[in-house]
Amino acid sequence: MTVRVAVAGASGYAGGELLRLLLAHPEVEIGALTAGGNAGSKLGQHHPNLLPLADRELTETTAEQLRGHDVVFLALPHGHSAAIAAELGEDVVVVDCGADHRLNDAEDWTRWYGGDHPGTWPYGVPELPGARDRLRGAKRVAVAGCFPTVSSLAVVPALAAGIVEPDVVVTAITGTSGAGRALKPHLLSAEVMGSASVYGVGGAHRHTPEMIQNLSAAAGEKAKVSFTPVLAPMARGILATCSAPLRGGVDSAAARKVYLDAYGDEPFVHVLPEGAWPQTSATLGANTVHLQVTVDPDAGRLVVVGAEDNLTKGTAGGAVQCMNLALGLPETTGLPTAGLAP
Amino acid sequence: MTVRVAVAGASGYAGGELLRLLLAHPEVEIGALTAGGNAGSKLGQHHPNLLPLADRELTETTAEQLRGHDVVFLALPHGHSAAIAAELGEDVVVVDCGADHRLNDAEDWTRWYGGDHPGTWPYGVPELPGARDRLRGAKRVAVAGCFPTVSSLAVVPALAAGIVEPDVVVTAITGTSGAGRALKPHLLSAEVMGSASVYGVGGAHRHTPEMIQNLSAAAGEKAKVSFTPVLAPMARGILATCSAPLRGGVDSAAARKVYLDAYGDEPFVHVLPEGAWPQTSATLGANTVHLQVTVDPDAGRLVVVGAEDNLTKGTAGGAVQCMNLALGLPETTGLPTAGLAP
Amino acid sequence: MTVRVAVAGASGYAGGELLRLLLAHPEVEIGALTAGGNAGSKLGQHHPNLLPLADRELTETTAEQLRGHDVVFLALPHGHSAAIAAELGEDVVVVDCGADHRLNDAEDWTRWYGGDHPGTWPYGVPELPGARDRLRGAKRVAVAGCFPTVSSLAVVPALAAGIVEPDVVVTAITGTSGAGRALKPHLLSAEVMGSASVYGVGGAHRHTPEMIQNLSAAAGEKAKVSFTPVLAPMARGILATCSAPLRGGVDSAAARKVYLDAYGDEPFVHVLPEGAWPQTSATLGANTVHLQVTVDPDAGRLVVVGAEDNLTKGTAGGAVQCMNLALGLPETTGLPTAGLAP
Amino acid sequence: MTVRVAVAGASGYAGGELLRLLLAHPEVEIGALTAGGNAGSKLGQHHPNLLPLADRELTETTAEQLRGHDVVFLALPHGHSAAIAAELGEDVVVVDCGADHRLNDAEDWTRWYGGDHPGTWPYGVPELPGARDRLRGAKRVAVAGCFPTVSSLAVVPALAAGIVEPDVVVTAITGTSGAGRALKPHLLSAEVMGSASVYGVGGAHRHTPEMIQNLSAAAGEKAKVSFTPVLAPMARGILATCSAPLRGGVDSAAARKVYLDAYGDEPFVHVLPEGAWPQTSATLGANTVHLQVTVDPDAGRLVVVGAEDNLTKGTAGGAVQCMNLALGLPETTGLPTAGLAP
Repeated sequence: MTVRVAVAGASGYAGGELLRLLLAHPEVEIGALTAGGNAGSKLGQHHPNLLPLADRELTETTAEQLRGHDVVFLALPHGHSAAIAAELGEDVVVVDCGADHRLNDAEDWTRWYGGDHPGTWPYGVPELPGARDRLRGAKRVAVAGCFPTVSSLAVVPALAAGIVEPDVVVTAITGTSGAGRALKPHLLSAEVMGSASVYGVGGAHRHTPEMIQNLSAAAGEKAKVSFTPVLAPMARGILATCSAPLRGGVDSAAARKVYLDAYGDEPFVHVLPEGAWPQTSATLGANTVHLQVTVDPDAGRLVVVGAEDNLTKGTAGGAVQCMNLALGLPETTGLPTAGLAP
Repeated sequence: MTVRVAVAGASGYAGGELLRLLLAHPEVEIGALTAGGNAGSKLGQHHPNLLPLADRELTETTAEQLRGHDVVFLALPHGHSAAIAAELGEDVVVVDCGADHRLNDAEDWTRWYGGDHPGTWPYGVPELPGARDRLRGAKRVAVAGCFPTVSSLAVVPALAAGIVEPDVVVTAITGTSGAGRALKPHLLSAEVMGSASVYGVGGAHRHTPEMIQNLSAAAGEKAKVSFTPVLAPMARGILATCSAPLRGGVDSAAARKVYLDAYGDEPFVHVLPEGAWPQTSATLGANTVHLQVTVDPDAGRLVVVGAEDNLTKGTAGGAVQCMNLALGLPETTGLPTAGLAP
Repeated sequence: MTVRVAVAGASGYAGGELLRLLLAHPEVEIGALTAGGNAGSKLGQHHPNLLPLADRELTETTAEQLRGHDVVFLALPHGHSAAIAAELGEDVVVVDCGADHRLNDAEDWTRWYGGDHPGTWPYGVPELPGARDRLRGAKRVAVAGCFPTVSSLAVVPALAAGIVEPDVVVTAITGTSGAGRALKPHLLSAEVMGSASVYGVGGAHRHTPEMIQNLSAAAGEKAKVSFTPVLAPMARGILATCSAPLRGGVDSAAARKVYLDAYGDEPFVHVLPEGAWPQTSATLGANTVHLQVTVDPDAGRLVVVGAEDNLTKGTAGGAVQCMNLALGLPETTGLPTAGLAP
Repeated sequence: MTVRVAVAGASGYAGGELLRLLLAHPEVEIGALTAGGNAGSKLGQHHPNLLPLADRELTETTAEQLRGHDVVFLALPHGHSAAIAAELGEDVVVVDCGADHRLNDAEDWTRWYGGDHPGTWPYGVPELPGARDRLRGAKRVAVAGCFPTVSSLAVVPALAAGIVEPDVVVTAITGTSGAGRALKPHLLSAEVMGSASVYGVGGAHRHTPEMIQNLSAAAGEKAKVSFTPVLAPMARGILATCSAPLRGGVDSAAARKVYLDAYGDEPFVHVLPEGAWPQTSATLGANTVHLQVTVDPDAGRLVVVGAEDNLTKGTAGGAVQCMNLALGLPETTGLPTAGLAP
């Protein structure tokens, strides 16, 4: 099987990571690479790491350029996916790395992003309850946000098992590639190196409603989520520290069992051995989430920590995993589980 | 006034930061510098940054070496302070940067550190309610832990004002100097750079009882604290993200007022202008804590974020501030409020 | 003595570091703070580390705003200093942190910067032969470039003593604050962290003619300089590795003596003890250069390595040192020699 | 073809990178994993990134454990390879990542490493003149040092073409993983982050004789090499800045042609497009060297800059490339050319 793939938004970080993974995918042939302002330039100018594609020219992001492929990945600013997908037709698998089709609720969309709701597509975290079935054979996929991917995988089993209240606190430390390649003063290296900072505090980050949606679905009732993202001096990686009030007399062993039951058969979500805790370096460039869980009896809370690479499992790897499901390929095809460390 | 000062444990990070600050203190003359295994070597081998003291020889940490000074700073592993202080006599100001005399409760001490409780000394965060009075003229000072300093300053006003429940979640991102100069594999640069990791999860970090003590005092009842420390790839700095369930109808403006009232006159604790959030780089090398506070109405929580330099306000700067109070000097003498950035 | 000082370009990195140092200067009162595009905003928005000046408003960079001060520091893009200085009059001490008045040769200026030569002012590295005399009482000062400061201090003694050929190779590793606050893609944190890169290779960096000028003056003949700047993932610091072919039978001890003779009495330039080599962290925030020298007999070269903080001794600290000389103050007034480490 | 492979020294950084690459190698089955002090522990404790091997137990590094494999990789401290290889017999392909068999000259060995010369094996940089032929079908391979790999590839073409004098200056910036996992104070993260430092200055680094050997072979006469290694705050990557005096009237275009001729057909050594310069991030985790070259007419020098990942092309990737040649597999089998960036 040879799958012809196009990538829209190829000059950004998500686009680059998609291409890095697709180069190693045995069933994929890389077709059109498109961009906005960078159209006309060569890919090597933007991603000198992608040697095999260095001389490929970026063309304009238009439906015309993207047509004629089996799969089209969209790594675009939000608000553009629906129109392009409509033009591509229903036979093409469209995998949207943007936010446009993640939220179920039209009011949520309008509150957080403004404008009309572009609609909802199957949500791209196969390990969440029920998600895999919706992704198999799908023609449209909404890749999850990087924070919601790891945070939801960290908290959902406890909520689904009913061992915690749906009142969750998440502080997630992220590398700066998650902010993309935009030229913003606070992303300058001299500002970031040697410093930790917060942003979007108090429920202001757009990934909040996506987390609430996932956690509420698992809890069977509306979940509260207090989410604080922290910018740390590293290029990649998210470490999500999550906690919620315990229900009943759950101890660490029982909590661990809930997670082992949930993820024991998952190829990409890994509950670490007892006593080991996640570190983002172990997931760099891999399509994995590493988890550990414990109970703090004094505080009366369950604490779960998850690590992922925001660009891999958190974006591009998750996208390729969903493509595999959409195409009926083995889900793990072409996806690394060994991270780059140290 | 010339204050003759000795530093025990001068070859470590806390000792080095003490000396950096004391070099700039107009009333201080630096006397004996002592060490354990590094006794006999020159200070410049351990702290090449401290040029004016490069040729000073480190002597053994004994009461004999430390006697004859007006102030003795102890930057030693826990368990050694009480005996040395007893030998120094009651006229010498002893400022202990270690944990030995921070906890009020003997059982807490035994649970967290083992052995018999070495006793309780005035607690070295002058900005906490009542603390300044106990520190003025004191002959013994227990410098606070780096995490409890910033976390307590971040949460105490809300608890004291009764606007939150005493059920607090703290995730604090720290640079690796907080772990000291011990040769541990997980502190190797190749492990740390490009990675975030957690440790002491689930209430296992020894700073937890110290936080509970401070927050309970402010709340007037036993507080619960879920504390998660995160190691980030930076040498210095702590960013503490703290939250607690709101009581009643407090909004962000009212919450901000509580903090402005608490810290408006403080020289070292600064509530940032509305819309600005703390970053650790702004506090590097300064004896400051930067704070911001907001309300997350959907989550029903107050969120407070604080930044400090763990070695300065979190250890050595706090220690010098306490020395100033103990000696009757103006509290701000010799202490920088401008950080080194970028 | 109270010296009233203005800073033009206060929102940039050089301006911020000037203010950090001036806040600690006992004879200085900080007056007007001006900016270009940032005029009208508060200093705290750009330098949250400068707490004592957080509420000061930035005004437009005009002669009118800068008049009425004893000293005016210019931290502006090149090409603007001559006109402003002319408007300020000859009684004001003008210290230019830009490149405008560093080069002696008008043709050099035109080749490297374009346009007409703005003239030459006393060169701001007091430790170079003859420089201190020209700076004492000067009304105009051309602060040296960050690379030429440390590189010249590293190589000049050997050239002046005639122990090497004037054919010098310099590779200098720098933190990214040296590039200023400009929003350039290659300065984004995700690009810089975890990576080393070169720029201005092959004699293309504008600091090259300045180095050639300094080294030629010391050699008494035209020097050749092969200069390669390397961008490393750190905010501050320059480590310059310099080498040149040995003349005659000089060994390491003799070479060291040349450097000890040259700098033994200097308060800010420090030849490290034998066996110790410079590291940039030891100079952070300090007005110091750390040097070490050795002979490689197999390669037939002298190797000298120097470290400095590009923003301190390499820019703002050097500027304040020159101000002290210009005003007849003790040269070391207000300038730290202890760096911030770790 | 299934090649059964053992790795001795699996718990170190070189061993971990070997395993990361071997996991992705289509012809390899990973057999025994051995260690020294870490024998008895699980691989996952040392390399949490290597999820698929997390539960594999490390056994003692003995010939008995290593026997019965087609290929044995040795990632051991120097001095151990000869004895183990002798015990394994001549049919097994032994790929030594250590220094034992790199040097041709027995006196060089004794001067730099002490003791008797363990002998010389085919040198593991296939792209050097003549090397590939010696590696094809070899039963013993001496993987090159990380610094000599990139530095030799950067300079050899110019020497072989006779366009420069054999009098070379190399300053190479390296990440700290090159120092291995040893617990040394200067490798602690708080020391490294935010700082650049030098070591082994003046020809004291053990990779110097290896460079001299490679460059002399290319020049056809004894080459002089002045080598300065710089430690930068990054985990991986080497950026080598190299220069040598030009012979005759070579300009940048002619110099570039020399390099394009030398490497135009090489799959792993890439001369960047004109105007682009190497950055280590573009090679992270890839078996590639990126090069650029220019002429500095004022300095009369050729300047070549090369980037590699010290653990990949500089160690483990080079080792796998040599294994492919030794086994008669296509040279590029299983080796990535796309780096992990940002």
